[in-house]
Amino acid sequence: MTQPYTIGHYLVDRLAELGVRHVFGVPGDFNLMFLDRIVEHPGLAWVGNVNELNAGYAADGYARLNGIAALVTTFGVGELSAVNATAGSYAEHVPVVHICGAPTVDAQRARRSLHHSLGDGDFEHFLRIQREITCAQASLTPANATREIDRVLREVLEQRRPGYLLLPSDVAQVPSYPPAAPIPSPHDASSPGALAAFREAAAELLDGKRPTVLADLLVHRFRAVDALAKLLDAGELPHATLLWGKSLVNELDPNFLGIYIGANSEPHVRQSVEEAEALILAGVQFTDLISGFFTQRVEPAKTIDIAPHEATVAGELFAPLEMRDALDALTELISGRERPPVPQPEPAPAPAPPAAGDALTQASMWDLLADAVTPGNIVIAEAGTSFFGLATHPLPAGVTFIGQPLWASIGYTLPAALGAGLACPDRRVVLLIGDGSAQLTAQELSVIARHGLNPVIVVVDNDGYTVERAIHGADASYNDIDHWDYAKLLSAFEPAAEPLAFRVGTVGGLRAAIEEAGAAKDRLVLIEAEVAKMDMPPLLRKLGEHMSEANARK
Amino acid sequence: MTQPYTIGHYLVDRLAELGVRHVFGVPGDFNLMFLDRIVEHPGLAWVGNVNELNAGYAADGYARLNGIAALVTTFGVGELSAVNATAGSYAEHVPVVHICGAPTVDAQRARRSLHHSLGDGDFEHFLRIQREITCAQASLTPANATREIDRVLREVLEQRRPGYLLLPSDVAQVPSYPPAAPIPSPHDASSPGALAAFREAAAELLDGKRPTVLADLLVHRFRAVDALAKLLDAGELPHATLLWGKSLVNELDPNFLGIYIGANSEPHVRQSVEEAEALILAGVQFTDLISGFFTQRVEPAKTIDIAPHEATVAGELFAPLEMRDALDALTELISGRERPPVPQPEPAPAPAPPAAGDALTQASMWDLLADAVTPGNIVIAEAGTSFFGLATHPLPAGVTFIGQPLWASIGYTLPAALGAGLACPDRRVVLLIGDGSAQLTAQELSVIARHGLNPVIVVVDNDGYTVERAIHGADASYNDIDHWDYAKLLSAFEPAAEPLAFRVGTVGGLRAAIEEAGAAKDRLVLIEAEVAKMDMPPLLRKLGEHMSEANARK
Repeated sequence: MTQPYTIGHYLVDRLAELGVRHVFGVPGDFNLMFLDRIVEHPGLAWVGNVNELNAGYAADGYARLNGIAALVTTFGVGELSAVNATAGSYAEHVPVVHICGAPTVDAQRARRSLHHSLGDGDFEHFLRIQREITCAQASLTPANATREIDRVLREVLEQRRPGYLLLPSDVAQVPSYPPAAPIPSPHDASSPGALAAFREAAAELLDGKRPTVLADLLVHRFRAVDALAKLLDAGELPHATLLWGKSLVNELDPNFLGIYIGANSEPHVRQSVEEAEALILAGVQFTDLISGFFTQRVEPAKTIDIAPHEATVAGELFAPLEMRDALDALTELISGRERPPVPQPEPAPAPAPPAAGDALTQASMWDLLADAVTPGNIVIAEAGTSFFGLATHPLPAGVTFIGQPLWASIGYTLPAALGAGLACPDRRVVLLIGDGSAQLTAQELSVIARHGLNPVIVVVDNDGYTVERAIHGADASYNDIDHWDYAKLLSAFEPAAEPLAFRVGTVGGLRAAIEEAGAAKDRLVLIEAEVAKMDMPPLLRKLGEHMSEANARK
Repeated sequence: MTQPYTIGHYLVDRLAELGVRHVFGVPGDFNLMFLDRIVEHPGLAWVGNVNELNAGYAADGYARLNGIAALVTTFGVGELSAVNATAGSYAEHVPVVHICGAPTVDAQRARRSLHHSLGDGDFEHFLRIQREITCAQASLTPANATREIDRVLREVLEQRRPGYLLLPSDVAQVPSYPPAAPIPSPHDASSPGALAAFREAAAELLDGKRPTVLADLLVHRFRAVDALAKLLDAGELPHATLLWGKSLVNELDPNFLGIYIGANSEPHVRQSVEEAEALILAGVQFTDLISGFFTQRVEPAKTIDIAPHEATVAGELFAPLEMRDALDALTELISGRERPPVPQPEPAPAPAPPAAGDALTQASMWDLLADAVTPGNIVIAEAGTSFFGLATHPLPAGVTFIGQPLWASIGYTLPAALGAGLACPDRRVVLLIGDGSAQLTAQELSVIARHGLNPVIVVVDNDGYTVERAIHGADASYNDIDHWDYAKLLSAFEPAAEPLAFRVGTVGGLRAAIEEAGAAKDRLVLIEAEVAKMDMPPLLRKLGEHMSEANARK
């Protein structure tokens, strides 16, 4: 029997068209028949996750590299477990299409007291929840399905944020027709008038001045990385990023200043940004943790601020104006100017390398790990000592760095490493995570092992929630956690996996483990690295003080 | 320095007053200082869970036995991970007080782009989400805190559903005064007029008739278990429950008919309920899985239906009328009547006991486990083969049976077993869970072990999501899961725990494991029981067919 073409087919065809190759999720009573469409599609693979929160995190990690991801859950119990992950994708501008299998349209209209509902006959509770954390939502019916699928997908592409499709089990089976034309690319919404006026204002502001560029994450999300690179190259402009946008630019370029963190920046970075004769902000959103708690100093009068769909020059707004167009206009203005070399700070004297027998510290650990990162690696650093420890180290070109400094949900990076590994099978993932965080989502190691992925996973064993100790309760029992044996955990999940596992507490031990990890390119490597409980990267210590103060009663 | 009395103190004093003794949750940036109030309170213990979903499930399990529970999370990332658990508490009428630590009132009002927010300055996204799944919510300020805390707690007590308190970190530190008077008990809202009219109508309907009673979960939730027992006893009335309310009555009482499941009931139960000359429904809500997909047959003309705050007699409504008052009125009417013995069905011939060498089946496994349950046990059965396999077996008096047939979120029972064990340290928990479900929340085993609890945990190893196979995709790859070694998992979590672990595949093996578990009363016992992939309890097979049909396009 040939299966007729249905709305389920239409949806999977659309996902594949947009570049989805893996679909994350967990089976459930109301999505099973749609899962058949996924597993039979030649361009899609089903990735069954251990739970829905992990599935949502994995989809987020996948989308950051692949440009888009898809997540499938079931009504109520499934979708609600993923709410935290979806909210994170919203906050951090990650395009994930969430498809939730639902009871039939008739059952919903009859307000039946079905399992996986609250039993009160209201089937829109969860749709209203999704409205808070997605940029577009649709409750699909036979009549609206193809139109609404296309609308939500278009919004996801334009806003670079998650969207939600509620797919009743019967609607997935309604006969339909293949898409007649591809989903249009996000259109270029710039007004020629706005662009011309922007160019004129920018030329005036930049006249005779050499601007410093401060770029961040939204340049990546709104697909203007190339346009930014052209601008930096055309003017050989001194530039910095914030922590969120780390790896947006080549950090070994001589014109790269470093990471700007407001008052917590290195002095020469702070001076170059704050005292620049002109400043170009590209895709920058100052949030607490990346701005040293809003200690950035930006003078509007000398600043060009390029946001995704608008720009300001000395406070004057130009819109609609797409980020790429604004960057290209600046490149044109800057090109052909003189380019005196950017003054370089005195290189700090190289510290004496620690001795092999020295106990591992947060300082020596991140130095060694940063040195070990090679082009092509995808470095995923958990919000905590990992993110704030590693992010201040320059990384080679060709490395992708992933963190979550706005949403900052602990446990995120472990499933995200699964998603990243599936998105880029030819690149090795380096996951840096604390023991407190790893416990939240640890069972996704099982799926990483099932897929035969080869990440290097560094679990920082420092005896609890160190990021919380930095804020409050340094010795409080609530910041303690149980000690787990992560190597044994892996073998409980997948006896056949045979990961390379190390437990290190000295500089020499970590060096040796890194070397073996580099040699065993195809294997999953687990390194448990012991450091002292209250040892923490200086930046995290400062941020902890800021946070503690921010939480206090004035 | 003496810590002044603050709103944080007020809140923990209120929780302790209502009977909370353990507080579940995970530390986070915005709740740390409130955690100090918990750990220093002489009547409260902090239970750090591995993640917030597990914390929410554990609080639910605790509240089902303790009458109330408290959960503490942090803004955004923490609270959203618990949304599924809270929605389950709402659906299943479980009173859990959720306290979420938030940024300061000033930071919220300034719309700062803080971590754990969506970065858009709107700090009410998550409050709006909580509105969908809690019965009362409050965003606390210095001015409203004590009044709003009391209002939300009162609603939780009256509605027997979760409530939500958003507690900014600075508000928790505002000086305050201890409560002047206890929270009033849920008041008796019955109207004397409604009660008198109900009594008259009920007397007429019951005149000369012996009613059958069908009781369910809401009798437990609205604290009318004693009133129901008195009614059943006064009239020696034949009675049944639904699956949801299992263990509400003594299932070995000669007047207990069995479990009513609509058309899926045992014939004598179905006949006794549906053909009764009069029927009393007490605390019954017919949902799909407990009614054999709405195949119940109830004739309004001969039915008295007692709901939490109203009752109907032959379709005529009486309100406001509290459940206890309506039950007491019926007891009065019934008392002193003649009580001919309830006819008993022919006992089915006892099947030959299976041989020790027989491979374990779903039939023999649940028979053996049901026989092993002893008074005092708390049996927690995961929605799936465990719930539908065990719930049809009568259990001794003094056993509490916990399932989740309306919300039916897989993974729920494992953390719920932690909550139940802490609520009742003198009773042994028997957790029955499938391997597919256990994986979602497995790491909470670590906390069970940390607390030295002694549950008997039976993991049914049947190679995947059998409940889904019953609905669709019997052999689909998406219903497969990874094989884990659960004994090794436990030792990875807590090397010192030394649980008794068994892996059994035969009747004799399970018998021996049960015997050893019974002897080792103080130890955590893990039994991995292998059964065939497509073997399932007959009731689940029937429900699977119902669900498959319900999902189909008509």
